[in-house]
Formats: sequence, C-alpha cells, structure tokens
Amino acid sequence: MAQLTIKDIAKICNVGVSTVSRAINNEPGISDKTKERIMQVVQEFHYIPNNSARNLKMVESNTIALIVTGIDNIFFQSMFGQFEVELRKMGYDFLLHAVSWREDVVTVATELMKEKRLKGMILLGGQMERPEERLDALGIPYVLCTVAHSADYPMPNCPWVGIDDELEGYHTVKYLIRMGHRDIALVAGQEADNAVSAQRLAGYKRALQEAGIPFRPELVAFANPDVTDFSPENGYLGAKKLIASGVKFSAMFCMSDLITVGAYKALDEAGIRVPQDCSVIGFDGIELSKYMCPGLTTMHQPIEEMVKSSVELLMQALDAGEKPKQKIYQATLIERDSVTKREES
Amino acid sequence: MAQLTIKDIAKICNVGVSTVSRAINNEPGISDKTKERIMQVVQEFHYIPNNSARNLKMVESNTIALIVTGIDNIFFQSMFGQFEVELRKMGYDFLLHAVSWREDVVTVATELMKEKRLKGMILLGGQMERPEERLDALGIPYVLCTVAHSADYPMPNCPWVGIDDELEGYHTVKYLIRMGHRDIALVAGQEADNAVSAQRLAGYKRALQEAGIPFRPELVAFANPDVTDFSPENGYLGAKKLIASGVKFSAMFCMSDLITVGAYKALDEAGIRVPQDCSVIGFDGIELSKYMCPGLTTMHQPIEEMVKSSVELLMQALDAGEKPKQKIYQATLIERDSVTKREES
Repeated sequence: MAQLTIKDIAKICNVGVSTVSRAINNEPGISDKTKERIMQVVQEFHYIPNNSARNLKMVESNTIALIVTGIDNIFFQSMFGQFEVELRKMGYDFLLHAVSWREDVVTVATELMKEKRLKGMILLGGQMERPEERLDALGIPYVLCTVAHSADYPMPNCPWVGIDDELEGYHTVKYLIRMGHRDIALVAGQEADNAVSAQRLAGYKRALQEAGIPFRPELVAFANPDVTDFSPENGYLGAKKLIASGVKFSAMFCMSDLITVGAYKALDEAGIRVPQDCSVIGFDGIELSKYMCPGLTTMHQPIEEMVKSSVELLMQALDAGEKPKQKIYQATLIERDSVTKREES
Repeated sequence: MAQLTIKDIAKICNVGVSTVSRAINNEPGISDKTKERIMQVVQEFHYIPNNSARNLKMVESNTIALIVTGIDNIFFQSMFGQFEVELRKMGYDFLLHAVSWREDVVTVATELMKEKRLKGMILLGGQMERPEERLDALGIPYVLCTVAHSADYPMPNCPWVGIDDELEGYHTVKYLIRMGHRDIALVAGQEADNAVSAQRLAGYKRALQEAGIPFRPELVAFANPDVTDFSPENGYLGAKKLIASGVKFSAMFCMSDLITVGAYKALDEAGIRVPQDCSVIGFDGIELSKYMCPGLTTMHQPIEEMVKSSVELLMQALDAGEKPKQKIYQATLIERDSVTKREES
C-alpha cells in the first residue's frame, strides 16, 4: 500500500498543508468544523500522529505473511504461536497462508505480495528451486524457514534458516550404525516429495554407503500419496507394510516424531517390542516424544531458535535494508529409551 | 481502512475525475504522461478496475481475523489449516492473532478491529462474559468458535459454534459410571480457568451427583499454573500427583487427548496397566488418539464441521447482513481399548 503524504490529505480535504498540520497537532487557528473534518480523514486513512516527522506518512500495513507448505504438519503448527509472539513483539501481525504441494510457492508468494500490502514474508516448509531471482524481484524482505536445503538445491544467497536435512539424516543413521545396527528400516514421507523427505533419504543412503552397507529399497516405506505425510498414519501404514513384507530389520528411522507414533502402534500390534526387538529413532524432538512409551530417542530441531532467527533476520532487513543472511542450525540427538545397542551375532 | 473515491484520486493527481476515468478505462483524450501518472497512483492505491461501478472504490481488505486464546493448544492448531482452506475458498485471507489468558479477548478484538481493515472476526477458544454488547458495537460480523459456553455464561444472542462443555463432561463421566466405575479421577486444566476446564468439571460433578457418588476434591488434579494446559505435561504431572497421593481410582477422565498422552506415561512408569488396572478416557478425538497404545476411548468433537459452520455463518452475515446464528454440536463417543467394564466387587 502506498503512503499518503500530508499533501494528499490536504488535497482530499481541500485545505492547505499547514491547516492539516494544525489539526493534527491540536494547534489553534482553524475552526472546529474544519478540524473535525480533517481529523476524520486522518483517522480514516490511519495516520500516525508522528510529531517528529516533517512528512506525516500514512500508516503502512504492518503485515508479515507466513506462507506455509504443509499446514497440516504439527511441526509447523507448533511454530505458529511462536511466530505470532515474536512478530507481535516487533509490532507486526501475521497473515497465515497455506500452499499445497501442487502449487509453486514463489508464484503464490508473488501473487500474495501483489494483492496485500506486505512488509515482508516468511516462507515455511516446502522446496524451491533457485527461488532467489524471483523472490528478490518482489522488493520486500523475505526469509525461508525450514525449507529443504541441500547440495542439490544450493541457495548460497538466499535468506534462509533451518537445518541441513541431508546432513542430519546422515547423522541419524550413523548413530544407529554406531549402535550396531545394519538392517535399518526407513519410514519416509512421500516418494514424490523432493524436499525434506528426499534430503533425509539421501543422508540415510550416504551413511549406509560409508559403512559399506548396501542400500536396499525394500527397507524403505514411503507414505501413500493420499496420506498426510509425516503423520501418525504415515508411520502406522509404513511400519505395517515393512512388517508385512517380512523383510528383517533391527532398527527403524522414522522421518518425524509423529511418524514414530504410528510406527509404535504397528509394532505393538505385531508384538514387536521397542527397543528389545526393534530400535526406533524419530526426528524433530517435539514435546510429545518425551511422553511416548518408551521415551523416544530423536533428533531435536531447535524450533524456538529457528523462529527467533527468522524474525530477527527479517527485522534486520526491514530496519537496515540489508538482505537477510543464512543461519544453519544443527539438530541435537536426544537419547531416551527407544534405541538399544545391537550386539554382534 | 477507508475507501478512496475516484474524486480523491483526481485530487491527488491534480486532474479532473473524468481524466482519471479515461486513464482507467484506457480511453483517448489524455496524454500518455498524464495517464501514466494517474495509473501509477491508481496502482499504488490498489484500485480495482471495476467497469460497472460509477464510483471506483479502493479495494477493501479481504481479511478475517482469527483471534485465538490458547494458540499452543494442538486442538486449535489443527483447525488453522482448515480455517485457511475454508476462508480462502470464499476469497478471504486470515490474520492469526493470539490472545493470552491474561488479556480480555473483547478488548483485543476491539483494538484489532480499529487497527486493521477487517471484514470479520472468528474468536477461537477462551471465555467471555456477555461479550455481545461490546462485539456487536464493532459493526463487523463475528462468530465465536469453541468458546466456553454453559448455563453460567449464557449467550443466547451470540453467534456461536461449538459444543456444550458442561453437557459433554457430564456425558463422559456418565459413560464411565455406566461402565461400573465410581472412583473416577479427573485430570483437568488450570484451576483458575473458568472456561472449558470449569465447564467440563461442572459436568463431572453433575454426573457423580446424579449417581449418588460424593464429589471428592482429592480425585481432581489441576494443571500447575506454569504448565501449558491440556498438554501432555499437564497430563503427566496430574496423573503423577494422583498416583503419588495414594488415592484409589479405577478410571481417569482426562480433559483432552493430549492430557492422556502424559497420563499414559505416568501410569506406565507406575506399572499401572491401561485398561486392566485403570480405564482412561480422553476428550477431543484428535487423530493421535487412534494411534495410542492401547487405542484411546475418547469424546470426539466434530472439528471439521465446526470450522465449516463458523465460516458459513460468517459468510451469511457478510453477504446478507444478518447476524450469524448459533450452532451447537454434540461430541460423539469413540470406543477403543482404554476403558473396560469394572465388575462390582
């Protein structure tokens, strides 16, 4: 939204600039009627009574759009409240806008930017190929938060906050291998997803290869295309399929904590005990993981820090006009009771 | 936000109204330079090229505010995506605004309404005493969704969608009594919460009284004030406290499914088996409840229908100018494996 100047207000009211100034600053020299008329227009157009400024400007929108790919994902949902708190602290509101996997995020962002008077954007989740040129062209600051990021999709100049999903997938599986496991099942997101799920899968493969363990596709269960990925259902159906196939595994890497919830259920139904018969490791470190039985060993993403960083980087860009930088976080292993050492047999 | 008329645009540009009209309608008779200048202003102020309208008006905001009390509550979070989808279908965006328990929701709504160019509001969660007079005064349509509602807080004329928490609390406990239980523990929200938690507690008391079972405060565990209510932590600490107190109970009513997640953990740690040693019933019927071990018996709230209704009622009000009506839903019992019949001893 453009800014009205004090001159525009004066024109709309058919008075001089000094008259508007008098009305705003409650100075004498104008009639009550004129003053009232001016103040009505000033209010209608949301003027800030800014005494220091020579040019009174119209209040701009204070809206930041949070554009989310995967709004049904509890991991992102847990961030909304924090984004709200952090943005409000800075005096901004946020507009929540969901994007489906079938839409192009940058196109959606562009349209939203055109329609709304946005101050900035935070893009949460999903995958974009070289989005910088198009996003930079929008002319408002933006930050990508937990958007898939890897060697395949380098974004060296993109304002970006998150973890390296390939690297953390690698660390997760390396940990299981260190615990003596070689037959490691993987419950992944959708096969068509070339974002987070693909990156963590790449990390899984790298860790196996490094340990000289051949990659076996029969150990990987993808989510059905009609199932919300990273959900308990994703985990339940995935683990069921693996169990039913008869393939042998001593450990299972689930790509999200919610996937482990469903996997626990499928293992329980099959009489497979965690961790005695099968070790299970999750990803995300959401609060729930602590309360699972047994307590879930998982890779914790520093959600709070990532939200804060995203907002901070955006604010820096808004205040200083600088393009935000990147901030890559590391996931931390939380060891609880769902993974056990496998002795060599 | 006020609407600029074609006259205002003409004044800002220092031209006549007909010149603006020509520029907008791409008619001859003005210089390219003037046209360019006008179109720049028109674009800056987001005019709709509305050919049928005599007075071109500024594009109004299409924003609905979703004002949430309890943004950390997974139950509300699961509604955000649906609200987004439903509102977008109708051509609206939504602004998510969190309210803390310490704030007065109506005051927050009033301020937000003044600041933003809102088309309407949906107020989610929380408790309000006779909010109608103040909310009606705002002059924009609103709907209260899953705001606590009971005989103590009648809102006969308030646009309202949700369940009757007192009644459903009563049904839940009546079911446990029907299953032979008399010593029924309750894991509630915070004691200071006079909203949903208080209403379900009132229903718990009514069911006991009706069955001639005295109410015993030692069977009720409230959330610590520093703990997010209706969360796994709420359930874990509440159940721990009940177990540690030595009070005997054969069943436990947890006020949310997430509370049962923590309660399961506390019971598991104490070696108390569900349902053999203690039956557990939840509330909400979130997806997760299906994947718990054992599968959770719970009272399901029709979330999707409630979201759709809220949006529909709001749209009716926006289109027809009618004040939205009330729509009270019933919770449905989902029987799984966490509640068992207690034989008379």
